[in-house]
Order: sequence, then C-alpha cells, then structure tokens
Amino acid sequence: MQEHLIIIGGVAAGTKAASKARRENSDLKISLYTDEKYVSYSACGMPYYIQGLIPTEQKLLVRSPEAFKTKENIDIYLLHKVIKIIPDENKVLVKNQQTQEEFEDKYTNLLIATGSSSFIPPIEGTDLKNVFKLKSIEDAIKIKEAVKSAKKAVIIGAGYIGLELAEAFHELGLQTTIIERLSQILGVFDLDLAFQIQTYMEKEKKIKIILNDSVISLKGDNKGSISSIATQNGEIIDADIAIIAVGVKPNVEIAKNAGIELGETGAIKVDSRMQTNFSNIYAAGDCAESINRITGKPVWIPLGSTANKHGRVAAINITGGYAEFKGILGSMVVKIFEYTASKTGLSEKEAKNLGIDYEIAIVSHKDKSGYMPDAEEITLKVIAEKNTGKLLGIQAIGKGDADKRVNVVAAAITAGMTVENLSEIDLTYAPPYSSAIDTLLVAAQILEDKIKKDVTGISPQNLQKFLEEKKPCCVIDIRSPEEFEAWHLKQAKNISMEELEAKIEEEKPESMLVCCDEGMTGYLQAMKLKEKGCKNVSFIDGGINYLKKLPEYNK
Amino acid sequence: MQEHLIIIGGVAAGTKAASKARRENSDLKISLYTDEKYVSYSACGMPYYIQGLIPTEQKLLVRSPEAFKTKENIDIYLLHKVIKIIPDENKVLVKNQQTQEEFEDKYTNLLIATGSSSFIPPIEGTDLKNVFKLKSIEDAIKIKEAVKSAKKAVIIGAGYIGLELAEAFHELGLQTTIIERLSQILGVFDLDLAFQIQTYMEKEKKIKIILNDSVISLKGDNKGSISSIATQNGEIIDADIAIIAVGVKPNVEIAKNAGIELGETGAIKVDSRMQTNFSNIYAAGDCAESINRITGKPVWIPLGSTANKHGRVAAINITGGYAEFKGILGSMVVKIFEYTASKTGLSEKEAKNLGIDYEIAIVSHKDKSGYMPDAEEITLKVIAEKNTGKLLGIQAIGKGDADKRVNVVAAAITAGMTVENLSEIDLTYAPPYSSAIDTLLVAAQILEDKIKKDVTGISPQNLQKFLEEKKPCCVIDIRSPEEFEAWHLKQAKNISMEELEAKIEEEKPESMLVCCDEGMTGYLQAMKLKEKGCKNVSFIDGGINYLKKLPEYNK
Repeated sequence: MQEHLIIIGGVAAGTKAASKARRENSDLKISLYTDEKYVSYSACGMPYYIQGLIPTEQKLLVRSPEAFKTKENIDIYLLHKVIKIIPDENKVLVKNQQTQEEFEDKYTNLLIATGSSSFIPPIEGTDLKNVFKLKSIEDAIKIKEAVKSAKKAVIIGAGYIGLELAEAFHELGLQTTIIERLSQILGVFDLDLAFQIQTYMEKEKKIKIILNDSVISLKGDNKGSISSIATQNGEIIDADIAIIAVGVKPNVEIAKNAGIELGETGAIKVDSRMQTNFSNIYAAGDCAESINRITGKPVWIPLGSTANKHGRVAAINITGGYAEFKGILGSMVVKIFEYTASKTGLSEKEAKNLGIDYEIAIVSHKDKSGYMPDAEEITLKVIAEKNTGKLLGIQAIGKGDADKRVNVVAAAITAGMTVENLSEIDLTYAPPYSSAIDTLLVAAQILEDKIKKDVTGISPQNLQKFLEEKKPCCVIDIRSPEEFEAWHLKQAKNISMEELEAKIEEEKPESMLVCCDEGMTGYLQAMKLKEKGCKNVSFIDGGINYLKKLPEYNK
Repeated sequence: MQEHLIIIGGVAAGTKAASKARRENSDLKISLYTDEKYVSYSACGMPYYIQGLIPTEQKLLVRSPEAFKTKENIDIYLLHKVIKIIPDENKVLVKNQQTQEEFEDKYTNLLIATGSSSFIPPIEGTDLKNVFKLKSIEDAIKIKEAVKSAKKAVIIGAGYIGLELAEAFHELGLQTTIIERLSQILGVFDLDLAFQIQTYMEKEKKIKIILNDSVISLKGDNKGSISSIATQNGEIIDADIAIIAVGVKPNVEIAKNAGIELGETGAIKVDSRMQTNFSNIYAAGDCAESINRITGKPVWIPLGSTANKHGRVAAINITGGYAEFKGILGSMVVKIFEYTASKTGLSEKEAKNLGIDYEIAIVSHKDKSGYMPDAEEITLKVIAEKNTGKLLGIQAIGKGDADKRVNVVAAAITAGMTVENLSEIDLTYAPPYSSAIDTLLVAAQILEDKIKKDVTGISPQNLQKFLEEKKPCCVIDIRSPEEFEAWHLKQAKNISMEELEAKIEEEKPESMLVCCDEGMTGYLQAMKLKEKGCKNVSFIDGGINYLKKLPEYNK
C-alpha cells in the first residue's frame, strides 16, 4: 500500500513539511487539509498588507494549491476541517465546509499543524461589526476594507501584532489608541527598553497608550457597529474599528480529544523529532511546544521562523530520516515605525523569575561610526550568568541596526559562549556599519569587567531600592554643569571627574554612586576609583540619559 | 621610580592602549609620541570626509591631546618622531620635528603602534602635484582641497580604499577610472562575488575599470601637476588627480633596527599577549601580525577593528593584568554605493590555496520577505570543510543587508560550529528583516545537504572544467521557455521539471547537470532525481542568474 501523509493545517509548518516530505520521498501520497480559504501564506506580512505597503493579498501567498499539485504532487484541500483524529485506526474524520459532507481518510503518518487562534476575552460586544482579530488572510482583507471608512481605531493589546497594526493605522491616518492590561507595551521586553518605544509612539506619533487597564465591554451603535470601548478604570474611548490582539492560544482541541498528550505550556508535547505520544503522529508549528535552549524547559512561543523549522524536522523524520529540533531562544524582532526591537534569550525579568544570579550591561550608542550622517542610536542590554559569565540574552532597541547585534548573540548563546568569548569575536567594521569596536563588543567588555572585577552597575530598575538601602550614599554626577542643571537625581552632587579624584583622597566616602551620561564614563570612573582603593563604588547602568527615559523619571 | 609606558603611534592601537592602560593603572606615567600632526582619529572615515558626508575633519578626531592630558593624564607629543629604540637601555631616541631637537626618553614598557604606510610603486611621477595616497588626515585634507578643481580622477588599486574613494569621486561629479593589476576588483573576495560589484560600478555608475594592467608612469603638465597616466598595456588616461591605493606595508623599520623580531608576514611578531621578543616591548595595530583563528597561522590584515583590540590586550598585559588576543577571521565590510560587500573567514580561493577539501553553497535571495517593498537581493557564499562540515567562511554581497549574515557566521566560526549547527540557530524573523527561514539558514541547509547527501553543486568557477570532463553530460535547463530564450548555456536543453521526471525514467542519462534560476530549485531537483535513482546529478551553485553575472558569461 502507498504510504500516506496527512497534514492538518496549511500555513507555515504544514506547507513547509509537505514540500520537504515530497523532496525526501517522491512516492509518498501527501494530503493537506485546511479549514481556511487560503493556504501557504505569510501571516507575518498581514500588517504591511493592511498598511498598503503590499498592494494585494496575492503577494502574501507563497504557493497556490494548483502549484502544490502540479509541481510537487501535493493535494491541498481548502475549507476542509479535520474534526476528529482516530489514532487507533490511523484515520481522520474530515468535513468539507462547502458541501457539509463528512468523510474519513486513512494515514500512515499524521502531522498536526493546526496553528494558534487569537484569544478573544469573554466580554460584551466582541461580535460587533468592525471588531476584528488578525489571524488569517480573510481577517486581513476585512480589516483593510473596514479601515477605508474608519477614523478612530482602538487596539486591545500592546504585543508586537498590536504595535505593528498601530503603525499601519497611524500611517493610514487613523487616530489610534492602544489599551494594555500590563504596565508596559511589548511585554517580552524589559520595561526599560519597551518604554523608549512607548515614549516615542506617544510623543512623536501621538498614539494614545493606556496601560494597566482592561477592556470591559465594546459598545455598538444602532447599526450593530462598534462605537466605543469601556475600560475597567472608567475610560470610554470612541472607536469605529477595534482590533483584539491580546494574545493567542494553541489549537489543540482536536489533538487533546484524540488522547494526544499536551505539555505543561498547554501546547502539544513533542520530542526533539516533533513526535507526539503516538509514534506515527507528529506536531509542528504554533500548536506544538519547543524547548528553550537556555533553560532546557518547554516553552510555547509561536513564531513563523520556528514553525518553518518544526515543519522541516517533522518531514525528515516522517519520511524515514533523522532530524532533531534542538530548541529555541525566543529570538524575535519587530519594527515599530523607525524603531527596531529585537531580542534573543532571556530578558532581565525572565532571568530574575528563574532565580538566576545574573549580571547585566546596558550600552546606548550609535549603530555606525558616530560621525556618519545616518548613524542612529541603539540601546543594548546584555545579560549573563554571574558565576560563569555564560551569555543568557540580549535585548536591543533603537532607530539604528539593533537586529544585527541580536543575531550575533543568538549564534553565541547557541554555542554556549561566555561574555568573554563574545568580546573576542572578530566582527566586521567600516564606518557605515559600526564603530571600530562595535557597541556589542563594548557591552560585552563592560559585562566581562562587571563580572570579573566586581564593579557594581546599578540596573535602573533597582536604583530606588539601592538608594534606600545604601543610605548614606554619596551620589556624584560627573556630567557638565549644564547637563546637571537640565536634569539630575535629587540626591546628586555635581562634581567633575578631576575634582572627584582629588576629593576622594580626602573624604573616603562609605558608599558612592557615579552618574554619567551613557553609562560608559561612569563605569570607567567607577573602575578608576576602585583602583584608588574606594570600596563601594557603583555606577548607573546606561547612565542618566537612559534613566531619564524611564517612566518613574520621565515626568 | 614611577613606571613609564611609552607608546609610539597615535591612531587606533596607540590611543586605545593609552586609555586602557590609564584605566588599569592610575599611577602610571604614559607618554605617546606620534610623527603626525593629528592624534586619535578615525582613518576609516576619511573617504566619507572627502565625499562631504562628514563636514569637517574635526569630526574624525576622537579625542584631542588636551583632552588626553586633562581627562586621562596622558602626554601626547605631536610631530615627534621616535627615530631609534634602544632595548638594552630601555630608552627611545625622539626627534621633535618642529625644532629638530633630539632627546632620549626612558621607558619601563614600550608599545610599538607605528601602523602602516601606503605602498608607493617605484615608478615615474609619483611626486607630481595632485598625486596622493590616503593614509593620514593630512592626506585627506589635501585630497579634499584638490578635488574641488578636479574633473578626472584615476585611482590606482581596486581594494576597498580605492573603491570607497571611487564612490566619493563619482558622487562629487568626477569622471573616475580605476586601474587594477589583478583580474578583479576587491581581491579579498572571490571573483564571482566581486564581479557583481564591478558590473554595477561600470554599468550603473559609469566608472571605468581597467583590470590586468599596471601603471608604468604618471605624466605631469608644465606646472608639475599630474596630467595623464600610462599603463603597461599602452593605455593613456587623462587625470587631474590620481590616488595611489595599491596596498599598505607595516611600519617596522624602527623595530627591525632594534632587533625586534619580525614574523613571516613581514609585520612584527607578537605572542597572544602582544609581546615581542623583548619582554617589556609590545606591538599592536597595523604594524603587528595576528593569528588566523581558522588556520592557526600568522596573517597580516591591517584593520581598525583589530588595531583597537590589539591595543586593549597590550595595555592590560603592560599594566600587570592578563589578556590574550585570540586571533582574527579577516572579517571586513565595505560599502560601495548601494552595495555592501562583507566577508569573514576564508574565501573559496583561500580555501583552495590552503589545500582544504571544501564544499560551498551559493544562494541569491532577498534580504527581507520578498513582498516587502524595500527588499533587496543579497548573494551569500558559504564555505565549509567537506569531511567535518566545519564552517570556514562566508562572503556576502548585495544591495540588501549582507553584513548581518556575515557577523552571525563570524560568531559561529569563532565557536567552531559546523554548517549543521549554523542551520539550527534561532535567528530573529519579521518581514522587514528577513524571510521566515533566513537566507543564511537556507544556505546552511543546502550546504549541509551537499555535504551529507553528496548532491553535487558545481561552483560557477569550475563549470567549464566540469563540462569538459563530464562529456557527454546532459545539461537540462528547467527554467521557463522565455527565460531560456533570453540566455542559456549553449549545451543546454529546455525541459520543464515535470517532463524531466518522466523523461528520466526512460532515458537514464549517464551524467546530468540541472540549470535553474537561483540555484535553489536546481538543488531541490537534483535531490529529487537522486531519490529516483539517478546517480550523477549536479546543479549549478547560484543558478543561471548568478552565472550570467560572471565575466566569462557576461558578454
């Protein structure tokens, strides 16, 4: 009997697996069922389609069902919902959503690539006209149509899809409001980095961002169309279009009902070969878990990049080969207007939650040589394990090329590098691409010194606590009198570096905190004072320029 | 007695070492002698200053002698030439070039950071007016002045400085000619990649590029100014400004005369701590060798990024610490108009010269998701050791973000990764930054398959040889009839993929070469035919689109 691979789901993991399986085995029968109207499309491109940067939805379609058939002999069944998996009999029950006809199909191997769905909160009004989620191409088409006559948009949720849509709506001329339950936008980033983008969106783009608040109901007009949104804290926001982007959940019902084991994250549990607890049933993409390469623990971070890799590994194993998916780092990047926010590995809050003894370095610097006219600032926050120096993660944010530095660290973490190893990498240099010592290497060197020499950098998040605990602490601001005048910590005294060194010889303060502009000078000065025999010298990670951008200081 | 560090040279390595030494030891006396008029400047920024992107030369100066004194207590002596090192007596002989006065100075430790000089060929006319090299800020100032009244520029040498200047001159409206002794521009790259940029410069920018030719004399007018250039092959090119950029040589005379050992590259031999054969004499920057991390052999690749790292390591060791410089990968990047050319590790020709059994993958693809309006093409050429899969190098060229991919590979090579490890890295993805499976990962997967499964990709350089050896070889072009019509190999037959698979069952040709557009389809098709039992199936690395760009096919 001919072997038959059935795939459920036709976006990233499903179609990738179908093509890869075909390449590995030209005799295999391959059938792909999807309950959607489209197959093989780039879901991540939808915000750009809505914004109008991509002229038609056709451009998002990677391959048509006809092309799958003629070029790869893969049968795609659109609008066919698999409603039941029967593992004992190696078959699925399928419903043709156009004819309502149900039929069974037998598989040799099954791949579940059912993806994820938008989480819709159980509140009043989510079924009103012009209330959308953004999950399928059909959603995108509807939003693009609705936006034409809309003037006021509300986006519920400030994750990366919410923010990408905020950009799209703003560029299309809509007055845009974002409502987020958490105390920050872009929850996967540390607050200090995310806040830079929040400030920029509010001040430069006039987007209203409401934090620490939840939507309690969506109100409609007499035509059943959204007209306003009410929040827990009593805000009423007018809206003629609303997007629900509060998060996604894995589509696992059908798997669960068939006795396929779910993991602790709620997504389908798979081994490194993408195999479930049934030996001929695999899962891949947004519906499946991954292992975090740093912690070794299961995580569920649904991303298109991971889905493609899942699909490839599953296909190799299904066709009799051997491949392993080694795990993820949670690497991600998002463009928000001119800003890039990029991340790999653990954030500071994740490291803290995991109880890891970590050290950080924050460096804000130009992405190119500072004298190049198009040089833009980036802020890097690098995190390493304190005892071993092992790299744990990096977050990079700014108008400059933040993404390049993050991908270098993704390679470094994968290889198990320490910060010292990182600082030794021979990165490319020319003025249009970096400074002679790339900002990433500077951050690595600072982190190395902090770990080895025990120069204490105070993370902006911990500053208030530090100042309370360390009383009396001598807070020295070594910036120019003009900079000091413009903004300073209320505890600070303004002393030049030269004066400071002289003074130190006389006074020998118990505990000292050096404030500089970007962190680098403060760090160097702290090292120097340490050299001179001062014991408790600290500096502010990222310096005053960074501190000023944080919510508690940015008033 | 107070310890005294004397540093000879004040650009990258020298000033970096001075500052680092000061941070490590606040009591050390530090004196820096330079025979130049400027100290601590970015030499790499000079072409952008000449082009006018950087308004004044002041912008290139990182730190003034006054700032060195007041902020770091470092004494900078401009226009002071060290004319002799006397190791036995721990002293140097210095000449003040303004007063002509000579004096001795005693050191505890000496750092030689004398840099490199432009190589000036021994030909007639190099001393004519408006003939320049570009090595110091003073050179840059003179060129910027001379360019104002110039109309026709000739650049001798097509290395990266030559090409950066060609861009500057072109943008300033000069008619520009480049003369290069070798058969390609950008000699550190493989010809196939460099040729893309050559074609672009010639066709799009109308820059005349003369290869395989040498300048034999520079002719002057009756005012002693350059007027034309004569080449070996008999060309006479009019010029009112000429730049000699044929290469650089390390400034080692003073070291050599003092008995300091030179390495096989001709630069100063140092150990991993940057120490010379004298225990208190160190060398750093362009005058010193490095170890190639891949081959373990000494190399001399003078670059600003390396100089800074050399200086840092030397300073730590000089001040009693311990640091090692682990070596370089020859990582470099250069911007040539809209093009980026970036490289780390070995090129194909370097691997070939070293007798390494290597495998390559060439992939040309968009740097972002293909549907993004600003997506641009990049070509990646990845090289790995055939037996082990160990990464050896990458070259990346294109209008898109080539540099990001190269830096990931720099980290991967440093960690000793294989292509398989590379293909597993969790790189970031969003449509404005990459495709869902980044082009680098695609290249890694192809290379992995080529190594593991012995699918043979024919490197464009080896194609002619292959076609001669493999006669009779069935050359199959699977592109569309229109594409085939526009350009094809004379041996090729145009057959669709579907026909090909049917045909193969009947004919079973001895040896087959599949031609596709970008290499990827040909590779997939070759894999498929292999599956079907065909034995000698090959494809063209990079495909016909790539082949067409090569000099022998681009006529």
